[in-house]
Amino acid sequence: MGMKDQNTSPGDAEELLRLLSRAERLEALPRTGWQVCGVERPESIAAHVHGVMVVALWLADHHPEPKPDVERVMRIALVHDLSEAMLTDLPRPVKQLIGKDAVDRAEDRAADRILAAVPAWRQAFDEYRQGQTLEARIVKVADRIQMLAKALEYRQQRRGDVERFFDDHDTFDDRGIPLARAVFDALRTRYEERRWFDAHFD
Amino acid sequence: MGMKDQNTSPGDAEELLRLLSRAERLEALPRTGWQVCGVERPESIAAHVHGVMVVALWLADHHPEPKPDVERVMRIALVHDLSEAMLTDLPRPVKQLIGKDAVDRAEDRAADRILAAVPAWRQAFDEYRQGQTLEARIVKVADRIQMLAKALEYRQQRRGDVERFFDDHDTFDDRGIPLARAVFDALRTRYEERRWFDAHFD
Amino acid sequence: MGMKDQNTSPGDAEELLRLLSRAERLEALPRTGWQVCGVERPESIAAHVHGVMVVALWLADHHPEPKPDVERVMRIALVHDLSEAMLTDLPRPVKQLIGKDAVDRAEDRAADRILAAVPAWRQAFDEYRQGQTLEARIVKVADRIQMLAKALEYRQQRRGDVERFFDDHDTFDDRGIPLARAVFDALRTRYEERRWFDAHFD
Amino acid sequence: MGMKDQNTSPGDAEELLRLLSRAERLEALPRTGWQVCGVERPESIAAHVHGVMVVALWLADHHPEPKPDVERVMRIALVHDLSEAMLTDLPRPVKQLIGKDAVDRAEDRAADRILAAVPAWRQAFDEYRQGQTLEARIVKVADRIQMLAKALEYRQQRRGDVERFFDDHDTFDDRGIPLARAVFDALRTRYEERRWFDAHFD
Amino acid sequence: MGMKDQNTSPGDAEELLRLLSRAERLEALPRTGWQVCGVERPESIAAHVHGVMVVALWLADHHPEPKPDVERVMRIALVHDLSEAMLTDLPRPVKQLIGKDAVDRAEDRAADRILAAVPAWRQAFDEYRQGQTLEARIVKVADRIQMLAKALEYRQQRRGDVERFFDDHDTFDDRGIPLARAVFDALRTRYEERRWFDAHFD
Amino acid sequence: MGMKDQNTSPGDAEELLRLLSRAERLEALPRTGWQVCGVERPESIAAHVHGVMVVALWLADHHPEPKPDVERVMRIALVHDLSEAMLTDLPRPVKQLIGKDAVDRAEDRAADRILAAVPAWRQAFDEYRQGQTLEARIVKVADRIQMLAKALEYRQQRRGDVERFFDDHDTFDDRGIPLARAVFDALRTRYEERRWFDAHFD
Repeated sequence: MGMKDQNTSPGDAEELLRLLSRAERLEALPRTGWQVCGVERPESIAAHVHGVMVVALWLADHHPEPKPDVERVMRIALVHDLSEAMLTDLPRPVKQLIGKDAVDRAEDRAADRILAAVPAWRQAFDEYRQGQTLEARIVKVADRIQMLAKALEYRQQRRGDVERFFDDHDTFDDRGIPLARAVFDALRTRYEERRWFDAHFD
Repeated sequence: MGMKDQNTSPGDAEELLRLLSRAERLEALPRTGWQVCGVERPESIAAHVHGVMVVALWLADHHPEPKPDVERVMRIALVHDLSEAMLTDLPRPVKQLIGKDAVDRAEDRAADRILAAVPAWRQAFDEYRQGQTLEARIVKVADRIQMLAKALEYRQQRRGDVERFFDDHDTFDDRGIPLARAVFDALRTRYEERRWFDAHFD
Repeated sequence: MGMKDQNTSPGDAEELLRLLSRAERLEALPRTGWQVCGVERPESIAAHVHGVMVVALWLADHHPEPKPDVERVMRIALVHDLSEAMLTDLPRPVKQLIGKDAVDRAEDRAADRILAAVPAWRQAFDEYRQGQTLEARIVKVADRIQMLAKALEYRQQRRGDVERFFDDHDTFDDRGIPLARAVFDALRTRYEERRWFDAHFD
Repeated sequence: MGMKDQNTSPGDAEELLRLLSRAERLEALPRTGWQVCGVERPESIAAHVHGVMVVALWLADHHPEPKPDVERVMRIALVHDLSEAMLTDLPRPVKQLIGKDAVDRAEDRAADRILAAVPAWRQAFDEYRQGQTLEARIVKVADRIQMLAKALEYRQQRRGDVERFFDDHDTFDDRGIPLARAVFDALRTRYEERRWFDAHFD
Repeated sequence: MGMKDQNTSPGDAEELLRLLSRAERLEALPRTGWQVCGVERPESIAAHVHGVMVVALWLADHHPEPKPDVERVMRIALVHDLSEAMLTDLPRPVKQLIGKDAVDRAEDRAADRILAAVPAWRQAFDEYRQGQTLEARIVKVADRIQMLAKALEYRQQRRGDVERFFDDHDTFDDRGIPLARAVFDALRTRYEERRWFDAHFD
Repeated sequence: MGMKDQNTSPGDAEELLRLLSRAERLEALPRTGWQVCGVERPESIAAHVHGVMVVALWLADHHPEPKPDVERVMRIALVHDLSEAMLTDLPRPVKQLIGKDAVDRAEDRAADRILAAVPAWRQAFDEYRQGQTLEARIVKVADRIQMLAKALEYRQQRRGDVERFFDDHDTFDDRGIPLARAVFDALRTRYEERRWFDAHFD
């Protein structure tokens, strides 16, 4: 297959260093959604991706038959935010001002440039955005689970005002992944307990 | 296989949230080797793992026949520093004071607790430490490549005094991965150029 | 004049607090151009606007006949980056990915929302973007002068790699303001001296 | 008049760069009143001045007849804290230890040095301190409004303990500016609501 | 006495600079117990030692007959955490993973290296760890008092979750120092008042 | 002796907590001299005092006959900057604007308030300022040695522009302490070597 063929080509050290130098920008780029809520020094995009991979691998390992392709789950998770290495994590209000179509085109251009030399990675990026395959859906829910767990952590640390994350119904869409349903429920329960506790004992 | 069987068990949302909450500590924990060199606010361990996964996947994709098991490469890379979620990244002088055996035992205990519920992850952690399989060796060199690329970046940003990283021969051991050899050479060339440039034009 | 009429209306305390709360976001938003160059914790947009106002008022005070309208110079300087309170200071590479037209439209939408209640401020924002009037041109060069002075300061503090700011010819366009010419020349001279000094004595 | 004449002299680029370099120090200097209350990384003096200018321009635009001189309002607002570029924002307990007279003399000396070359700016600085003219009073209340709005913002972000700012009656002196009265009332109302809400639902 | 003899030898400037350079590392090293509780940017070890010396000197000054040797109290307080200049302040969970014996040995090795040239300091370090003499016990309780006072301060500033410090009975051991008993009681009272206040009025 | 009598009075836990709470402010207060030179996040006053105590104890231990009173050396070192707990570390340009006499009076007032309950500490503060006794002179040179060693450290870390510290002859006054002479010489030699090295190899 064409895609595989390219991946088995000898490769070029300079190509890797260019790719790495771009991917490493995710370390310095903050997840801006937290900043909008008043969280100072929130996690970086790189740290977010790290957490998503933990969740995605766990979901893939425990998914009932038919089993997902774990390699593809991991590949999709690793690249799913790579366009942000050039575009940064545009805050939601900024995206609304720019408009969804213009943002989508910019993400495509960014992915084109960053992943030009690794077509299998570029394909995984598209697979994530289309969100149809089992593997892509696992990463989509992993992305939400990591975000909610982080919101809960910031809540406990009294950093910022993250309640709105638990008010958005779309966040809790399990996309047909049964284990995600259970995790979403556990997260919501913890959140409710925390609210109740704060209201009564703090 | 016993290992697989356990992974295909239904799983438990609380188990994932415990695992995630520990893995996420890597976001707040700095890579202390940089701090020892005077780099303020260096990358976190989570960001390091993210970079290692980029390098490891690229090396696995481009490795000549016989092909490595890419899923295992990714799994090993994801867990290779997870013991530090409890043990933190002990600086090298601290490890020397404590002694190698005591540190090794502490790492084992940390991995035992963090990964108790996911035996396939625990196994991947051991595979990394033993460093014998093709997949483990790919992650080992990816770990070094990410470190050297970061040292080069800090050098260019004039953050800290990172030259010693390029003086340690062991760092450049390619562990039988031909592509790693090429990448190490490219990194050393860039480093020498930078030194020459600074000495003459800065 | 319709514009004046609206400004002399009684006004509404809530309107001011809404406006202020948005303008104050500029305090927390970094000037991203510096971050792209590796400057950590660069000035905020609010601090930039403050510096631009100092330069603009000085230029207006010292401008030869015919005298500019100083009130308008100050108003234009105060609002010239206010759209960034919603849109943030998009880094240049991000703007290129999004495309100039889409960015322009987003800036207009942001200014519309932030300045809906103060039409004279909205008009000053447009006047700046068109850049034709004497008052707008004074603020345009003040914006460049503040940026170059800051680049020089970061250079002396060895923060980031800001040389590219002195390599862009467009930056030094005096837009027909004679005093700006003299200031640009003084800035370039200081910069060249610094480079020469560093190359020989550091 | 004499003052105007000097301002219309040709001016000197070095003079501007000296003035700007001092004014820009306000970017790095924190508003220490917030630090005393436990707010970490509070706004800078430059950001404060920026906010005061927004409030002052809005008040001037909406002030009933007889209209203030908006240019003078803006000039006064821009320079009103410039002595702090040399003296820093001495915390209130420090001022009490030094004594009001000694502090006043030090502020004069600082303003003399910073504004030696721009007499119209020096005059505006004095006008603010005397606080008698309509324009100076507008800036005085703008200074308080910006401070209270910031205190409210820090309160909502749970940064520091800023309640004392709402307990000091002098802060709410409207200095004969009717619109300021309305804004002070709106700020107090928001503050009381916030307290009530926290006491019942947090 | 052999110990004294060595101290009265001429001394060597390089020896002092080596000792100082190591001791100064305590400035950059955080007290990790606070970080474990979620306190960002907690006090450094050097600042902790400074506070302990204030408490220890006050306790020594006010101690009933028989009077302690104040010089020795101060010497013990100054060196009591110096091993951490090499070993860092290992968080309690890390120490548990490594094991008490291995940690003790590492502390000894660190003290040996740092204090090789100043045997009277090395002796004071041991005296603290054995904790038997009146002077060592004064420093031991000073170490706890400073910690509890800091916990109270962080509690008031809503930084981190420090309640567990007041739940550990061992912390409040007065080691036979009567004044320490009074101070512990005062600290506990303040803490209870704060909790009661927060539960009712916040 | 009256002074001693007061110190041997039973003491009061609240008195200690008040004293400690003020002394602990030194942890959060930066040494502003470094900030003036462009060092970001410099050492705190508490960390400075810690370093001064290390130097002072070493100098006292190694001082030739007649031996200094080591307890008094330590007491003087511990309190020598305590007035800054209320007055903060006023930068030198600020002190010049305020005037030496006004600053001295403010320091006295601050020391009076902070040390009201501990007269022996207040006396040690005065002894330092007069700088006549052997013990006070040891702390005075220790204060300079710590400062120069820190300047050297910042120089090596390329933090700020600290060269001026080595250009001021008064700094190197040994105040009749022979060992201080040797340490000053060692510091100057290290500094010259560093400059030569940077000029040729960097």
